[in-house]
Amino acid sequence: MTPLTLSSPSFNRLLFFTSRYSHSPFLLRNFSSFPLIQRKLPHNHLLGVRCEASSTSSSPSSFTAKSSKEIRKAKIEVVVDEKLTALRQQFLKPGVGIDAYIIPSQDAHQSEFIAECYARRAFISGFTGSAGTAVVTKDKAALWTDGRYFLQAEKQLNSSWTLMRAGNPGVPTASEWVADVLASGGRVGIDPFLFSADAAEELKEVIAKKNHELVYLYNVNLVDEIWKDSRPKPPSKQIRVHDLKYAGVDVASKLLSLRNAIMDAGASAIVISMLDEIAWVLNLRGSDVPHSPVMYSYLIVEVDQAQLFVDDIKVKADVKEHLKNAGIELRPYDSILQEIDSLAARGAQLLMDPSTINVAIVSTYKSACEKYSREPGSKEKSKTKSTDGSNGYPAKPSGIYMQSPISWSKAIKNDAELQGMKNSHLRDAAALAHFWAWLEEEVHRNENLTEVDVADKLLEFRSVQDGFMDTSFDTISGSGANGAIIHYKPEPESCSRVDPQKLFLLDSGAQYVDGTTDITRTAHFSEPSAREKECFTRVLQGHIALDQAVFPEGTPGFVLDGFARSSLWKIGLDYRHGTGHGVGAALNVHEGPQSISFRYGNMTPIQSGMIVSNEPGYYEDHAFGIRIENLLHVKDAETPNRFGGATYLGFEKLTFFPIQTKMVDVSLLSHAEIDWLNSYHAEVWEKVSPLLEGPTQQWLWNNTRPLAKP
Amino acid sequence: MTPLTLSSPSFNRLLFFTSRYSHSPFLLRNFSSFPLIQRKLPHNHLLGVRCEASSTSSSPSSFTAKSSKEIRKAKIEVVVDEKLTALRQQFLKPGVGIDAYIIPSQDAHQSEFIAECYARRAFISGFTGSAGTAVVTKDKAALWTDGRYFLQAEKQLNSSWTLMRAGNPGVPTASEWVADVLASGGRVGIDPFLFSADAAEELKEVIAKKNHELVYLYNVNLVDEIWKDSRPKPPSKQIRVHDLKYAGVDVASKLLSLRNAIMDAGASAIVISMLDEIAWVLNLRGSDVPHSPVMYSYLIVEVDQAQLFVDDIKVKADVKEHLKNAGIELRPYDSILQEIDSLAARGAQLLMDPSTINVAIVSTYKSACEKYSREPGSKEKSKTKSTDGSNGYPAKPSGIYMQSPISWSKAIKNDAELQGMKNSHLRDAAALAHFWAWLEEEVHRNENLTEVDVADKLLEFRSVQDGFMDTSFDTISGSGANGAIIHYKPEPESCSRVDPQKLFLLDSGAQYVDGTTDITRTAHFSEPSAREKECFTRVLQGHIALDQAVFPEGTPGFVLDGFARSSLWKIGLDYRHGTGHGVGAALNVHEGPQSISFRYGNMTPIQSGMIVSNEPGYYEDHAFGIRIENLLHVKDAETPNRFGGATYLGFEKLTFFPIQTKMVDVSLLSHAEIDWLNSYHAEVWEKVSPLLEGPTQQWLWNNTRPLAKP
Repeated sequence: MTPLTLSSPSFNRLLFFTSRYSHSPFLLRNFSSFPLIQRKLPHNHLLGVRCEASSTSSSPSSFTAKSSKEIRKAKIEVVVDEKLTALRQQFLKPGVGIDAYIIPSQDAHQSEFIAECYARRAFISGFTGSAGTAVVTKDKAALWTDGRYFLQAEKQLNSSWTLMRAGNPGVPTASEWVADVLASGGRVGIDPFLFSADAAEELKEVIAKKNHELVYLYNVNLVDEIWKDSRPKPPSKQIRVHDLKYAGVDVASKLLSLRNAIMDAGASAIVISMLDEIAWVLNLRGSDVPHSPVMYSYLIVEVDQAQLFVDDIKVKADVKEHLKNAGIELRPYDSILQEIDSLAARGAQLLMDPSTINVAIVSTYKSACEKYSREPGSKEKSKTKSTDGSNGYPAKPSGIYMQSPISWSKAIKNDAELQGMKNSHLRDAAALAHFWAWLEEEVHRNENLTEVDVADKLLEFRSVQDGFMDTSFDTISGSGANGAIIHYKPEPESCSRVDPQKLFLLDSGAQYVDGTTDITRTAHFSEPSAREKECFTRVLQGHIALDQAVFPEGTPGFVLDGFARSSLWKIGLDYRHGTGHGVGAALNVHEGPQSISFRYGNMTPIQSGMIVSNEPGYYEDHAFGIRIENLLHVKDAETPNRFGGATYLGFEKLTFFPIQTKMVDVSLLSHAEIDWLNSYHAEVWEKVSPLLEGPTQQWLWNNTRPLAKP
Repeated sequence: MTPLTLSSPSFNRLLFFTSRYSHSPFLLRNFSSFPLIQRKLPHNHLLGVRCEASSTSSSPSSFTAKSSKEIRKAKIEVVVDEKLTALRQQFLKPGVGIDAYIIPSQDAHQSEFIAECYARRAFISGFTGSAGTAVVTKDKAALWTDGRYFLQAEKQLNSSWTLMRAGNPGVPTASEWVADVLASGGRVGIDPFLFSADAAEELKEVIAKKNHELVYLYNVNLVDEIWKDSRPKPPSKQIRVHDLKYAGVDVASKLLSLRNAIMDAGASAIVISMLDEIAWVLNLRGSDVPHSPVMYSYLIVEVDQAQLFVDDIKVKADVKEHLKNAGIELRPYDSILQEIDSLAARGAQLLMDPSTINVAIVSTYKSACEKYSREPGSKEKSKTKSTDGSNGYPAKPSGIYMQSPISWSKAIKNDAELQGMKNSHLRDAAALAHFWAWLEEEVHRNENLTEVDVADKLLEFRSVQDGFMDTSFDTISGSGANGAIIHYKPEPESCSRVDPQKLFLLDSGAQYVDGTTDITRTAHFSEPSAREKECFTRVLQGHIALDQAVFPEGTPGFVLDGFARSSLWKIGLDYRHGTGHGVGAALNVHEGPQSISFRYGNMTPIQSGMIVSNEPGYYEDHAFGIRIENLLHVKDAETPNRFGGATYLGFEKLTFFPIQTKMVDVSLLSHAEIDWLNSYHAEVWEKVSPLLEGPTQQWLWNNTRPLAKP
């Protein structure tokens, strides 16, 4: 699956990525122009004779900031939106008293995939896309989403809503807009559980410039108030223990290391809200959200105790036993803020990652710290040994805000995790071989075969594999022009048939008990055009260049990104997404902190033990899309030299599945590139054929034959 | 010439580069380890099983921070250093009253090459290396320099001085050190002309932490006070007009564009102190410093007038006429601060680049602004129209601090500048052909031939070329192990003979009336070893990869840096300097704002019209050094596609001179790489042979023969 695109970053994605992955302003850049670079540099007034380089920062004139409301005004009368009316009534309630309410896509844990009961933005606006932010004032309602969803949002929003096409020139951000439309001194309400501390701080600053106040409504989510009985129940599926043979390291050892990290940071406890971090530390897996094997929870680890905040109903006896053995106590999910307050009262120095932890927690802790340090005598206490028999030196509590130490440790896979990833990839390849052998026949036989049928069939083949749990994201199954839509999700009512005369792009993955997969292949069922072959071959060259890269430890991912683009750049082509993202081991298909991307702000070095995707692509609008994706494991390249005493790193492939040689223009490849492809296919045959038999094995044989050098 | 190395950045280089080229903390990184990255990331305590990646941040244990003083203590008695005694007496004078004095290498213009009369650090310390900072307290004297100069500094410093080996673990910076050794409340004096505003600000912050005060001594340089009569006279050579046929754009047009930039920035005037910027804007060239054709001066451009601050003695009638025609008035060099004060009094909003402009100017302006805005009625004046008949709306003056707009414009060459660069490169190649043909014979004939002899002979060949003015930097002529010293400067008394059995590295360049050259070639006079050939070939592959790169506009230089290292990385090799620097057109051999380097902080995009060097290398300590350097011109690559509407850029070579094919291990090259080398050599022959005849032409013929594909 591709790293998230930057062509039209949504408000949500921005909140997510600016806070969690990167603080670079380049995130905001329009890919085809560089307004932020331009702004940082002086105007190039001198010497007009060479101004062509700077003149390209203008945007295509076809973009307009016209809202859907304006477009439809002539056609549709404004309807009374009962949900909006009800929501606005909530504004006036005692203890609320706000002028606007912001409803983001997030849950309280900054999850990429969320449970239905938290899909408040979809409920209030009717817009069901994965990314969007709704802002409702007393007389206006606006929804921000990005280019992937403009058409869908136009269809789904009624005329009470204004569609804000995020990323288009002239379209303000949600924060800017709300700051502008309110009369000075406005009160902007949010549910503080749904904003990270960093995001809330940013929002607060923007609206403060126009003299508005940010109001945290802790006790009530206004959308939930009107959603009432029709709101889906919170997920309640059982949590399972992630077997030590897959986890590799037991919970006690992980907690020991984590406690060392806490003490090193000068803290006495850590509060963790990222669901994959909690699942990883505790060797637990859940089923609360689609695609990610996690459970809604918070974890607080102190030096001498630990508490998991989770709904009791999900915790069976074996999990209870598992947690008890690790010294972890259970607390109700909803009691997190009480415990934060109590920790402050006990003088705990909390380590928190402000890019992920919600502002409800951070703000509660800060208030409690204030309260505690204001108590008479507390200042003296913090410096001198207490003589009242309490435990040691009660310090004045204050937060330590830094990147989560777990994010880093989780990214560096241990041997068991790596083995699980390797094993699950081979089973996944077997399922894919069955699928592609079937598809190549079926596409010529069944002219009504749709993109959704294909995704369903793929799921069928995968689900019979040992240890299959779920897909790792919504399958991207795109025929012809749909392949050019980078995050295309075919829907039964609107998807295309799979055209045997067109390129077909399939990006999919699965969650197995022992690993997570993510693979993209692009194939043609008939005769590809010379253009399609040239583009495919250049994408393949980029894929090979990254696969074969060797680099010194300490190299940030963005240094490698250009290797994957270089062959496309030579003929003036490119792709509007990053080249690689981190992948969890039987966990989230997207994980940080590393990335291989043109977002130059992420300085995280690519380290031995990390897993990254290698997925260059090329997308020709209204025609076809190409992407070739393998997962790679970062390891010591064992170079004959080690200049500067450094370890040089390289990649080991985890994904073993044929790349369609019919698509390759061999005349463009170097001998070394042909050797790479042939030796990859030999390895695919060697590793995957034992898992197959009969016609499927024959299909694999046919698709792993070496190319001759011209 | 290589971009400055990072192996052991000196205090001076740090001041220079942190302020001017980059604000990245990576500048400070030790190349073989990544302490700053490590520090920004949480400790990797979790899962010891994978800790090898983080364990490499420890430094080689052989490094020690032992001072030369300590080393020699046993051998040498402390001598009385009369210069230091005299300097310390200055500390006590009325109006001075300081506890320490910092003497940097710089002149008042942050020049890379400075006039002898400004070499105060060399005078006071006896250390003559190009980079170093001296700090003298009432009882201590210490000198910071980098790894290039440790041996030289040990020899040149007497026992009153402590050598601080900058970049070695445990060695504090000069600012940290002075802050530590003074008793609280100390007064640290500097000559404010010798520190950029940014550097002074940084120094001030560091010493303020230890409660010390930074004292600007405007009226007296304490070293000059004791240097007295033996101090060389300031340079007084004639300024010349840089012919319009080389400059391409007349001064009036440049001033018009500059004035637009000033107004766009909301300023009313600009103060320029960078000597190459002044030379470029005014189409003038000087001879005040070695290697750079510039003259000591300041330039102030207001919307309706302009003043050049320069010693009258340098300005002949034709230059006076040239300046008068452009509306530029002459002022004495020393009257700059008076004019700054007077500009503030007139309400001028000065645009200044704080990374280059000295703090004497910035601080004088700030004080004057304070003074002006404190005058009774001035606040009202600034908002309302004056009625006293004075000129318009006197604004409250305040500085506008940003990157100089000239730095950018100067980097983008116009057609005439480009043509001059091309022409001068061909004449330079002719000189080099004479030289190398001579050297290859002489090295076998004369066993006493030294590295300095060779550099002198090269100068001889160059100086007979049309338009030759000067070398563009000190020739780096290194035989065998000396080639591995990246900025090696052979000295007559200590240099090696040129060993016909060893690799020879020659990095040199010239200033011509129409252009600036910078070229490195590495050659063997007998039979290179397999190791030397492999390393050379991989450096060549990196050189070719960068030369052939195509990339979308807006790409920062660091994205391309990895292309030049990739082939070395594959076998665990690398080099400790950047890959490319900007080059002026008949101006400084090093210019910004662009660079191609692993200093990831420089976001300047590589733009059409820029000139950069392409100079990957490899250095095997105590054995040999390899570098292959051409200059490149950035231009539209005219790709068949323009994805995203972007222009894709590529490089055009300016340097045409053979690369020794004897050094190439053909079996390592791809067919495309062999084609590159053959077609380059065909072009060299075609362009340079018409300038040669007889045996030299024959030499060129022999050295441009194509390689056969294996």
